[in-house]
Order: sequence, then C-alpha cells, then structure tokens
Amino acid sequence: MDAADPSPFTVDDYRARMDRAARSAADAGLAGVLVAPGPDMVYLTGYAPTATTERLTLLVLAPGQDPVLVVPTLEAPDAEHAVGAPALTLRDWTDGKDPYAVTAPLLDVDGRFGISDNAWAMHLLGLQKELPGTSYASLTESLPMLRAVKDSHELARLAAAGAAADATYEQILKVRFEGRRETDVAGDLADLLRQFGHSQVDFTVVGSGPNGANPHHEAGERVILGGDMVVLDFGGLKHGYGSDTSRTVHVGAPSVAEQRVHDVVREAQEAGCEAVRPGIACQEVDRVARAIITEAGYGEQFIHRTGHGIGVTTHEPPYMIEGEEQPLVPGMCFSVEPGIYLPGRFGVRIEDIVTVTEDGGRRLNATAREMAIVE
Amino acid sequence: MDAADPSPFTVDDYRARMDRAARSAADAGLAGVLVAPGPDMVYLTGYAPTATTERLTLLVLAPGQDPVLVVPTLEAPDAEHAVGAPALTLRDWTDGKDPYAVTAPLLDVDGRFGISDNAWAMHLLGLQKELPGTSYASLTESLPMLRAVKDSHELARLAAAGAAADATYEQILKVRFEGRRETDVAGDLADLLRQFGHSQVDFTVVGSGPNGANPHHEAGERVILGGDMVVLDFGGLKHGYGSDTSRTVHVGAPSVAEQRVHDVVREAQEAGCEAVRPGIACQEVDRVARAIITEAGYGEQFIHRTGHGIGVTTHEPPYMIEGEEQPLVPGMCFSVEPGIYLPGRFGVRIEDIVTVTEDGGRRLNATAREMAIVE
Repeated sequence: MDAADPSPFTVDDYRARMDRAARSAADAGLAGVLVAPGPDMVYLTGYAPTATTERLTLLVLAPGQDPVLVVPTLEAPDAEHAVGAPALTLRDWTDGKDPYAVTAPLLDVDGRFGISDNAWAMHLLGLQKELPGTSYASLTESLPMLRAVKDSHELARLAAAGAAADATYEQILKVRFEGRRETDVAGDLADLLRQFGHSQVDFTVVGSGPNGANPHHEAGERVILGGDMVVLDFGGLKHGYGSDTSRTVHVGAPSVAEQRVHDVVREAQEAGCEAVRPGIACQEVDRVARAIITEAGYGEQFIHRTGHGIGVTTHEPPYMIEGEEQPLVPGMCFSVEPGIYLPGRFGVRIEDIVTVTEDGGRRLNATAREMAIVE
Repeated sequence: MDAADPSPFTVDDYRARMDRAARSAADAGLAGVLVAPGPDMVYLTGYAPTATTERLTLLVLAPGQDPVLVVPTLEAPDAEHAVGAPALTLRDWTDGKDPYAVTAPLLDVDGRFGISDNAWAMHLLGLQKELPGTSYASLTESLPMLRAVKDSHELARLAAAGAAADATYEQILKVRFEGRRETDVAGDLADLLRQFGHSQVDFTVVGSGPNGANPHHEAGERVILGGDMVVLDFGGLKHGYGSDTSRTVHVGAPSVAEQRVHDVVREAQEAGCEAVRPGIACQEVDRVARAIITEAGYGEQFIHRTGHGIGVTTHEPPYMIEGEEQPLVPGMCFSVEPGIYLPGRFGVRIEDIVTVTEDGGRRLNATAREMAIVE
C-alpha cells in the first residue's frame, strides 16, 4: 500500500453497513436479509471465500438480532480473519450435517427474506424445504438500493478507478492498432489497467470492424485493418471498486457515414449524462439518450439499456432502463453507455461512469469523447 | 493445439449429452432440466458466456422437446458460436422484457424441474413467481449423476490433467522451500501447472507448519522454515477437465510424531483407494479411510469428507461422505483425500484422483505418496 492508497474499511464500517441493511429490511417489511458469498458479502463483511462451492456460506441479518455467518467448519478459520468478522458471530457446520437445519433457528419461520441475487438455487431450495412458511425475494427486487448509494470513501475509490481507466485510454491511443490482432490490443489494455493500479481486470473489449456490431464481443483473432472502427470497453477493480469505460476509435480517417453514427452516439451519451440529477427516475436517463438515437433513425440498432450501477462489482443495480422508476439519489454511481450496432459493418459505444450529486451529475471519466484516430 | 491434444467435442457429443439429460429427467419423474451458465452448461452445450450476470441465460431440456437456450439478445451472437449451438434453438430476449415470461411457455406449468445448483436464486424466484404450479429441485438432489459418469474421451482428458499434476509435483520437489514464502512456492506450482498444459489454475495450496492445520488455507506470506511440514494441494483445468492432487512434504528430516501422523494418513488414503469398486456406496470410501484415522486416535482431527467428484469442474458430485448411498459406477472420477489437522502444529493430506473401473479403481495420479524431504 503506498501513500495514495485509501485507508482500508474497518470493522466499524462493516458493522454500520450490516446495521443499515437490517434496518432497511425492516423498513421494507422483510424479516431479514440472507447474504451469499459475492459482492453483497464483500460489501457487508469484507469476507470473500477463496471459492464458492456447494457448501453453504450464508450471512443472516435480521432486525434486532446480531449478525450470524453460517460457514462450513473448514472455511471458518479464513472467515475469522475477515475485517468484518468481529462484528458478527460465526456458526460453523461440519461436512455431513444439514446446513439448512443449522440456519433455520436463525430465521423467522413465517418471515419473508431478501436473498442475494447470486445465492445458489440449491441453497434457496434447501431453505424453502426446511422452512415451508418462509418466502423470499431477490435483493434486486426487495432491497435494490442496498449497495447503490455510495459514501465518500466509496466515491473516492470509484473516482480513482475511473482515473486509472482514463490513463489506460490515453496510453492505448499511442499503441499500434493496424495489423495487430484484437487480442493483442486487449492484452495492452489489461496490462495498462494493472499498471495503473487495478488488481482485477474484468473485461477488455476490442471490437474491430464488424465485430464492433456485437456489443458483447470481447476480443478475437481478427487482425485490425486500416479503416476499421474499433469499440474499446474495459474495466475491472482497483482497491475493490470498479471502473468501466468505452470509447470508439478509428484506424485512419473515418468515412462520413462512420462519423455521422459516432456523432449521434456522442450526442446521446452527452444528453444522458446531462440528464442526471436527483429525483428523476432511472428510466429517464435511458429515455433521453434513446430519444436522440431513435430520432436519428437508429432506434432498432440500440439493443441494450443505457447503463448499470457500479461499486464493488462492475455491474449492479440501479439499471438505467425503461420501466425502472427508482429515483436517482446523490451518491449513486452508474454507467451511461448508449451504442449503435450495425450488423456486418461496425458498432459505436461511448461510456462514462457518472455519480449523482446534490444538484446534477458528475462524470468520473474525463477523456475526450470525440472519435480518436489511431494508427 | 498440438498433436497430443484431444480432438474437441463435437455437436454430436453435445446433442447426445442433452438427449441423455432429458431422458434421465423423464426417468426421474421430472418435466425437464433447467441449466444455468457454469459447468452444467459447458458440459451440455460447450457454451460459456464471458460473464454470468443478472440477465437470464437458461437452457431448457425437456423430454420430447427440442433443447431451447433462452439468452439475452446481446449475448446471442456469442451463444450461436458455441459448438453445441446447432443442436439447440436460441430464444433471445431484449433488455426491458421479462425473461421469465419468455421462458414460461417452454415449461410444463405443473411440472417439477431439476435446476443447476448454481443457478441464481433471483432466477429461480422469477420462475416460481411466473409459474406458481411448478416445483424445483437442485440437480445435485434430482439428477446427481448427470455429469458423474465419464466416457472414454472425458477419462482421457482427466488422465492427461492428472499426469500434468504429477509432473508438477515431481518438479516442485526440486525447488527451494526453506526461506521462501508460501506464495513463492504457490507461484511455482501455478507456473508448472501451466507449463504442463493447464489453461486454468484453480488452487495452489501451500500450508506450511501451523498453516497446514487449516485445510482451506491457500498460501500466505509465511516464510517456510526448516523442520516444517508443508501441505501441497493444487489443481485446475487442462483441455477443460480437472486435476486435483495433494502431497505433504517436509523441510529436512521429520520428527517421529510427524512421521507417525503422515503414516496414518497414507494408510487411510491407500485403504480408501483400495476400497473403490463398482456397487459400493460412496459413503463406504469415506468410512474405510475414516476408520483408520479414528482408530489411530485422530478422528476428531479429520474435519472434512474424504472426497469429491471431478470433471469439467474440480469439485462436483459424487461426494465421498457419510450418508451418500449412491453406488459407485464405472467411469466415475473423484478424489480420495483424507487428512489430519493439528491446530497450532501442522496438517497432513494426501490426495489422488481415482476412477471406478469394471472391477475396482484406478488412480489417475502416480507419484510417490511417502513423505518427500525437500530443502
């Protein structure tokens, strides 16, 4: 850890998060929150098991009850070392025991519980069988805002991750594109993200020419050619918080048609970012960006939502999508990333992370959004 | 791919696996099998999405019905490239649509379904809400043997992965232990596994001295000392199939007590491997190994089950554990890995992968199980 590193979260931070989760659950009429290994567990306790297996690990948070972590006996020594461990009680179970029977006494037998989206179906089925009077809803449905509003320490980390992504983009403009494979440029992106402090690289999309028209194309063996449009979309985790940014560059001078499509996406992305302010619904950000693309005649070619939240993962609620009426709240962080995808030809996507401020929005990415020309 | 590489699985292989899964479901009284991204999906279709997200991807297999893969629109181009894709129909859904409503018409509204263990709870809840008359059981509960019995092509891959792990072990005996950190030796193990053809390293446990007493300790900053017992447990995937082997070595000459504990584990592991034959229950392998350790007075210090299956993952059914009455069948592959863990002192674990043959068992690891002395 160097001087610029943020101070680690403390047991008090995790205790406060667990308290707040239990209170939010009560406010939402839930008997508690059941937390599986993954981002919810990391956020609430700092605990990340080395592997997620079929052995049940489950944090039980209930209003008026101390947090309890049900954990396999052979994982208990690791769990005890989690920063948040002093704020909870471990209840371990040994191979051969029924982990749902171990968990049941911690739960209200008639209660409704929020459960981590990514909890394994087998564990949910185990609990439903053990306690037929209970009912469940995913955390995205029941407490979608549990991790959505970031405090100042989290915002500082997200800003640092964004700055590292920006530095990566500035450097990638200097590498050779023409004549190299997408995977070569993707490797450069990953190296740069790590060089600028990322501990984890989640994706390095390099979609050249027609590959750019597939929004989830990662990077392949295609050799990048002069005249290609190239979608770059890269991100990962730095100090435990995410980056995710996209820019679309061109090898040599673009055609008029390419420039036109890029201009439309840039205008849509700009408008989406400008729309951000407390109180508007998430779907409003999508509508604003989509209207510009639709008006330009490319509505059918914008085949995904406009954005997603970011925090301890690079992909989480809130979602900027039609139908999402959740109002924006200061501290929320999410992507604004409209795109146009022309099958067989090329794609364009531009993406920044935006955080909601008291009176608007602030981007956590600051590099130029004009189409950069690369060699 | 070099000459020694196995030929890839074909669309016919995947079609046959999907057919068999649907038939097994019918035999088990299920209306179908619901397969999430992960090992079940890889096994049945060859499809591995670049990321598992909150967007529903689900393979529906039902007797007398063609396989259908429900997939987000923006993942569809990748899914179409999966080797097994020609054997199934893609049904894509766009952001903003309800994916459970898209899935519902594929399901018997009163049916009972097997569902991948690791399917997300949010998706199971979505299906339960959309179709209240349906019921579900995890695949481990409802079709535990779906991937358990390996065909000859799979066995060849598992044997190759085991041979690579053996080569790794032979080489690691030549590296320096004393004075280096556990993480240094773990790095050597990872490098060697990759050098011998692993595309993925899942774990490289180096548990020196007291750290060896925690079976799930990975590798830490502890400097290995002369006189340390060191548990090594490493594995990953080669050509898509797993390796997983453990040996316990000693830095310099062991004490009489250390040798005695190692001898007990070695005897237990030998007996467990010898017990393997078609028709005996899984729990019998556990009982045989455990009896020897218990008789030696260390029963309380053997705190995990004796083994787990291996295939497209390094951890899957069948489990060698008390209560598992599933009979062994030729082609099953699993670990036999008893251990003794003495808190504050050291641990010993010895592990081989064993496959069930027509008349017994055959180990896929062949290195010496005596305690090796390292420097």
